[in-house]
Amino acid sequence: MSQDRAETERILLLTEGRTTPLSAKTATGVLRYSLGQVVGLIDSTQAGRTAGELLGVGGDIPVFAALGQAPEADTLIVGIAPAGGELSGPLRREIRGAIERGMRVESGMHFFLNDDEEFSRLAKRSGSMLVDLRKNDALDVARFDAFDPDCLRLHTVGNDCCVGKMVVSVELARGMTRGGCETKFVATGQTGMLIEGDGCAVDAVVSDFIAGATERLVLASKGHDAVVVEGQGSLANPRYSGVTMGLLHGCLPQGLVMCYEAGRAEVVGLEPMPLPPLEEVIASYLSVANLQHPCRFIGVAINSRLLSGDEYRREKDLVQERLNLPAWDVVRESVDGLVDEALKLRRQLADKGSTC
Amino acid sequence: MSQDRAETERILLLTEGRTTPLSAKTATGVLRYSLGQVVGLIDSTQAGRTAGELLGVGGDIPVFAALGQAPEADTLIVGIAPAGGELSGPLRREIRGAIERGMRVESGMHFFLNDDEEFSRLAKRSGSMLVDLRKNDALDVARFDAFDPDCLRLHTVGNDCCVGKMVVSVELARGMTRGGCETKFVATGQTGMLIEGDGCAVDAVVSDFIAGATERLVLASKGHDAVVVEGQGSLANPRYSGVTMGLLHGCLPQGLVMCYEAGRAEVVGLEPMPLPPLEEVIASYLSVANLQHPCRFIGVAINSRLLSGDEYRREKDLVQERLNLPAWDVVRESVDGLVDEALKLRRQLADKGSTC
Repeated sequence: MSQDRAETERILLLTEGRTTPLSAKTATGVLRYSLGQVVGLIDSTQAGRTAGELLGVGGDIPVFAALGQAPEADTLIVGIAPAGGELSGPLRREIRGAIERGMRVESGMHFFLNDDEEFSRLAKRSGSMLVDLRKNDALDVARFDAFDPDCLRLHTVGNDCCVGKMVVSVELARGMTRGGCETKFVATGQTGMLIEGDGCAVDAVVSDFIAGATERLVLASKGHDAVVVEGQGSLANPRYSGVTMGLLHGCLPQGLVMCYEAGRAEVVGLEPMPLPPLEEVIASYLSVANLQHPCRFIGVAINSRLLSGDEYRREKDLVQERLNLPAWDVVRESVDGLVDEALKLRRQLADKGSTC
Repeated sequence: MSQDRAETERILLLTEGRTTPLSAKTATGVLRYSLGQVVGLIDSTQAGRTAGELLGVGGDIPVFAALGQAPEADTLIVGIAPAGGELSGPLRREIRGAIERGMRVESGMHFFLNDDEEFSRLAKRSGSMLVDLRKNDALDVARFDAFDPDCLRLHTVGNDCCVGKMVVSVELARGMTRGGCETKFVATGQTGMLIEGDGCAVDAVVSDFIAGATERLVLASKGHDAVVVEGQGSLANPRYSGVTMGLLHGCLPQGLVMCYEAGRAEVVGLEPMPLPPLEEVIASYLSVANLQHPCRFIGVAINSRLLSGDEYRREKDLVQERLNLPAWDVVRESVDGLVDEALKLRRQLADKGSTC
């Protein structure tokens, strides 16, 4: 996938009926890393409000009721990714409108725009370009014989979906590069792909080839000093743990970052299924990660968006003591501490002769 | 998938260039459970030999050089499943010949016969039926809210691929049914599907939906006293561990059976990558399985095909002591001991009020 994203592009984010941080993950990610110029969101149920109010990022960017209110936009990004990828009536209507206007339409849904007969036909007529971020032809099994011994492999994992693994991955890679260790963010989901301009949505890969697709992403990053492979799902979320496992073994990382959202007690989408204690989740990751390659946690990334300043400081103290690992909210504070831990691991491995 | 397999069917197994127990898993499984009537194998590199000599099952069933030597056959089953599913020249030639003869052709490859333009065209002309066992349209995420509390869920797992999980699953389900506990073998791979007549090749499901596809298979087995869900791959085989994990969490079993092949030291297909000690593999399975549902191992299934009688007895003693679990080769001995352990678990759970 190549983005060819122009500086002058004017982006609309379609988040119809789901403009919340958990449901509009793609929109939130795009707003956070202000890709091109986002001119608005489309959600007929929230018209008149702002991105900042609803998503906590994007400030005054307005929410429109429909496409017609933003005639200057030239790109529509479907900013939600419903489980299973079903396409509701209002979503279909807005996408159709964008295609008829000749806009570029990008989607991270499991439902492929290019496979839809009506969308394809309309796009052919209008010149609209349809980009299905999740579409892939991965049919390679992993081989595990070609990792670059001089490139450190880091991987973000979580105790659940939607805890901030992508943000931590982007911030860590950028922080390490600023610190002199040229690091590639390896995008493994549609939002990361929009931000980085390459990658693969591994949850859309046929199960037999998920480790192979992950390995291929790491191999494509050769020449960097380090990679941060974005995690997906969680071993503790049984709906998506297969994806999590395939990623973990596909990149065989030396260093892991544990990501969680403070205050969340239940598995997202499977409520009231309880989330296991972080200690158990960490033990599970170490158990499976170390079956084939030595691996340790370098730190914990707290998503503290639901906490006050005082609550955050208490949470941080508590979690550091419980897990015996350094912990930060890299958005609220800074990613520098986590970068230091990553560079420390790199030095330790280099002292042993290799990071592979 | 419905098999509609007639008693009078005459089956040829295509194992071109790969008539070995590890490569011709599908052929070996079909021969073991003598589905319909197998009249021969096709492998131009082994013509004149027998199934028994090459695969250890099937006795005097002959190996032919080509399709033309078995004019009475009406079904061709592709009995090998190459990694990635590429189709070599000789394979393509024999499949084409079978289609031109109007035979039913069944394949478990990732490469779909029905997607091949030449095959489809020829089949249309000859009336040949093309069955792609791995083809699926699974797009449901798991929900975990509808397991039958009165149906025990057992699952076979391994320390690697190709250790005999399918055979153990079939034997255990049949043994339990004989013992009065009506048990369904839940097929999760192409060979199991050929034997059972239903199921889903979960390794061909898009990663996001593997747990959902597994859950759906279990829910479709409602009304049975127990299910044995066939395992795939291994947590210790990083190439396929995503599939293994998705299956494990998709069925959230109460009881596990550990399957391994005695004498194997390296991960199949990834040699010289060493297999971890069984203790570590068992600990990993328990760690991830118990994150969301209480689960324990009920026993160990030894595949001792490489061992003499004396070697087998020593291996059995050793592994029982090391793992503190009862162990058997269910083919060499009998499945009765494992059945007893499964029924014991069922009683324990029933005493607690539910097996769910």
